[in-house]
Amino acid sequence: MSKRQLSLNLFVYPNGHHEAGWRYEGSEPERVLDISFYQDLAKKAEAAKFDALFFADALALPDNIRWASRFRLEPITWMAALAAVTEKIGFIGTASTTYFDPFNLARLFSSLDHLSKGRIGWNIVTTSIDYAAQNYSKDSHPVHADRYARAHEFLDVVTRLWDSWEDEAVVNDVPSGIFADDEKIHEINHIGENFRIRGPLNLPRSPQGRPVYVQAGSSPDGRAFAALHAEAIFTAHQTIESAQEFYGDIKKRAAANGRDPSQVRILPGISPYIGSTEKEANDLLDEFNDLTQLEYSLTHLRRRIGVDLSGYDLDGPVPRHLIPTEGDLTEITRFKLIVGIIDREKPTIRQLMHKLAGARGHFVFAGTPEQIADKIQSWFENGAADGFNIMPPYLPGGIEVFISEVVPILRKRGLFREDYEGNTLRSHFGLDRPKSLYSEAQRKSA
Amino acid sequence: MSKRQLSLNLFVYPNGHHEAGWRYEGSEPERVLDISFYQDLAKKAEAAKFDALFFADALALPDNIRWASRFRLEPITWMAALAAVTEKIGFIGTASTTYFDPFNLARLFSSLDHLSKGRIGWNIVTTSIDYAAQNYSKDSHPVHADRYARAHEFLDVVTRLWDSWEDEAVVNDVPSGIFADDEKIHEINHIGENFRIRGPLNLPRSPQGRPVYVQAGSSPDGRAFAALHAEAIFTAHQTIESAQEFYGDIKKRAAANGRDPSQVRILPGISPYIGSTEKEANDLLDEFNDLTQLEYSLTHLRRRIGVDLSGYDLDGPVPRHLIPTEGDLTEITRFKLIVGIIDREKPTIRQLMHKLAGARGHFVFAGTPEQIADKIQSWFENGAADGFNIMPPYLPGGIEVFISEVVPILRKRGLFREDYEGNTLRSHFGLDRPKSLYSEAQRKSA
Repeated sequence: MSKRQLSLNLFVYPNGHHEAGWRYEGSEPERVLDISFYQDLAKKAEAAKFDALFFADALALPDNIRWASRFRLEPITWMAALAAVTEKIGFIGTASTTYFDPFNLARLFSSLDHLSKGRIGWNIVTTSIDYAAQNYSKDSHPVHADRYARAHEFLDVVTRLWDSWEDEAVVNDVPSGIFADDEKIHEINHIGENFRIRGPLNLPRSPQGRPVYVQAGSSPDGRAFAALHAEAIFTAHQTIESAQEFYGDIKKRAAANGRDPSQVRILPGISPYIGSTEKEANDLLDEFNDLTQLEYSLTHLRRRIGVDLSGYDLDGPVPRHLIPTEGDLTEITRFKLIVGIIDREKPTIRQLMHKLAGARGHFVFAGTPEQIADKIQSWFENGAADGFNIMPPYLPGGIEVFISEVVPILRKRGLFREDYEGNTLRSHFGLDRPKSLYSEAQRKSA
Repeated sequence: MSKRQLSLNLFVYPNGHHEAGWRYEGSEPERVLDISFYQDLAKKAEAAKFDALFFADALALPDNIRWASRFRLEPITWMAALAAVTEKIGFIGTASTTYFDPFNLARLFSSLDHLSKGRIGWNIVTTSIDYAAQNYSKDSHPVHADRYARAHEFLDVVTRLWDSWEDEAVVNDVPSGIFADDEKIHEINHIGENFRIRGPLNLPRSPQGRPVYVQAGSSPDGRAFAALHAEAIFTAHQTIESAQEFYGDIKKRAAANGRDPSQVRILPGISPYIGSTEKEANDLLDEFNDLTQLEYSLTHLRRRIGVDLSGYDLDGPVPRHLIPTEGDLTEITRFKLIVGIIDREKPTIRQLMHKLAGARGHFVFAGTPEQIADKIQSWFENGAADGFNIMPPYLPGGIEVFISEVVPILRKRGLFREDYEGNTLRSHFGLDRPKSLYSEAQRKSA
C-alpha cells in the first residue's frame, strides 16, 4: 500500500481570502466575475494535481459591500462552467439545506456529477447568516436545532433520490426498444416533518453514485451531523491542539456510528503568506494588513463578536468585559474561536482585526516555503489533518506561488501525489463509491 | 437598415424530438448524458450562426421511461457547461415559477448571464405536469389561475432583483478602497401575496441587464402573460393560419400594453425530415414511425387527450365521441391542437400517434431542403413567424443535415445572417438592453 497522501483543495474566494486582497497590486479585481479568470485557476490547480476547488456561498449581500467585493458567481453554475474545461480536478460547492428545495438540489447536483463525469462534492450548510431569511419570504431565520432537523431529513431525501435509479437501470437496448429497466427505478415515497416527495429523480444514477458529502460546521450539532454523513470536513483552527481535538473527536464519533474513519477526510483551512525569508513573509502579511479599511474591519468584527468597538482606542486592548458570553447562536463556533484568540494572545483591537482580515478566523501562516511545508506536514502526521483547504490571500498570484514553491517540497517528501490515480473526486479523496440503497446487493446485505 | 432576419434556435431534446429517435441508426443514445456530445452540438450550431440553443424541462420522470430516454441534464447546469466552450451563441433554459424560489432563480440566471457574458434566456414556465407537485411537498399541483398569479409576482420580483444593482454600481477604485457605490445598490423590499423579499441580489447587474424573457404557453393566461413580459415566444402550430392568428394576436396585445411589437420575437417549432427528393423525405419519416413502440405512443396519447385507446382498432378512426370536450386544464392548448388535427385530418389512431411521435404536436414537415426553406420563408414573410425553433428528429445527424442543406438556402435568399453582429443573445434577437428600474435615468423618464 502506498504512503498516506495529503489532500489539497484550492478554496476560491473573490479576489482571494484577505479582506483587502482586491487592493493588492498582484490582484485582478476587475475580473471578479470573469469566468476565464477562474477557468485559468482551475487549470493551474489541476496541473498541480490538487484534489478540488472549494466554493463557499452566502445567500444575501453583506452590508459592507462598499469596501470589498463580497459577492461571487453562484457556485452550482460556476462549477459547471469550470468542469467543462477540466478533466480531473474536483469541485466542491456550497448549497443550503435551509433555503434550497431537495428535489431541485438533488437534480442540480446529479446533473453536475453527470456533466463533470464524477467530480462533484456538495458542501452541506444550514446557512448561518440570519438576514438570508429576508430574501426567502421567511419571517425569521430558523433556529439552529430546526435547521439541523431539516438538514437531517434533507440528507435522507436527497440520498434516496440519488439512489432511486440503480446503477444498471439504463438498458439502452435499441433492437428490443427497451430504454430502461423500470423495475430498477424506484419511487422514494418519503413522508416526513419537512418534506413529502415521491420520486424517483428524473436522472439516472450519477458517476459517483452520489456527490461527495462535505460539511463545514463545527458546533455540537454540526459535529454530530458530520460524523453521520460527511465524507470530507472543512474546519477552522488556530492551533494544532484545537485541530487534533476536532480530528480525534470526529473520527471517534464516525467509528461509533459504524463508519470507517478513513472515509471521513478532515481538511482545515490555511491561508499562507509566502516569502523567501521569514521576514519577507511577515512583511507581505503587514503589507496586506496596511491595505485594510477600518470601516470594513470594524463591521466584520462587530458581526463576529456581537459588539461595536468603533469608539475604542484601536491600539488598546480588546475590552473583554463587553463581549457577550455567548454570541449569536448561528455562528457560535467561530465566535468561540475568536474569543479564544483574545484570551490566548491578548491582542489590541487593531491586531485582532488584522488577525481576522486574513481569513475570517482560519489559520493564517507567514513563512518560507519550507516552513509552510513543515507546518502542513506536522498537522498531517500528528492527527490534526488529512489535508488542507488552501486559502490564498489574493488571486491568482497567491495560489501560483504556493504551487510553484510549496507543492514541490510536499511532493519531494512523498506527502502529495505526482499524478492523479483516478478520474473522480471520490478517487482523489480515497472514498468508496456507495451502492444504491435500492440495489439488490445492498438490500441483501442490509 | 438591413433586411429583416430570421432567428434560428436549435431545440435540444434527448436523442432528438422523435419519440423513437434514440433507436434510429444515426443516433447516439449511449451519449444522452455525455456533455461532450452537447458541446459538439453547440459548437456546430454556433458555427452555423444560430441564435440560441433551447432547452425544455420536466420536474418529474414520466411513466413511460421504459420505452424512451425521457430525461435530460438539468438545464441551468447544462447551459453553464455549454457556455464555457462557446463564445457567441445564446442559451435559453426552462425553469418553473411554480417550483423554484425567486431568489435562487434570480441568482442562478444572473450567474449564468455573467459567466456566458450575456448569452442567456429564461424560458418562463408555470409547469403543466401535475405529478410534479408530488416531488415538491405539495398536496396538489396549483390550478392554472394560481400558477399564473404567482408567475406574475415572480416576474416582478426577479426583475427587481436583476435591476437592484445599477449598471454603474461597481466602482472598483483601488486607491480609495471603495469597491462599490452602495447608493446604487437597492433593496427591493417586496411584500406580496406569494413572496416577501428584501434584496438586493448578491450579484451585480449582468451583461444583458436581465436574461432574455422567453415564454411558451399559448393559453389565454399564457398569451396575456407573454404580451406583458415575453421577449421571445416559442409556440406550436400545425398550420400557417393558426400561426398567423397567434402572431397577430400577440403583437397586437403587446402594442396595447405599450410595448414595441418588434421587441417580441415569435418562434414556432418545426421538426424537419429532409430528403433529396420528397419521396426520400417521406420515407425517412416512415422509417422513424416504424421504430415507435405502441406502449409508449398509447401512453403519450392518453396523457394528451385524456382517454385510453389501447382497446381500439389502431387502423380504424379515432373514436371522437370518447374524447372529453375539455382536457386537463393544465395542458388545454395542446389538447385543442390535437383535437384540431383529429377534426381536420380524420386520422386513424395509428396515424394520429405517428403525427404526435415526431414532435409532440409541433409542426412536422418532410421535404427537400428547398421545400423546407420555402415553408420557413413563407411563414416568415406572411406574418406567422420571426424565426423558428428547429426540432431535429434525432441527434446529431438531424441538425447537421439542416445546417448543411437548408441554412445555405436561407442565407442565399438573404433571410439568415452570414455572421453574428454582436456577442449577446439580445443582440442576436434584436432586443434592447433594458435600463435598471432603479437607475436615475429610468426614474426620471418614468
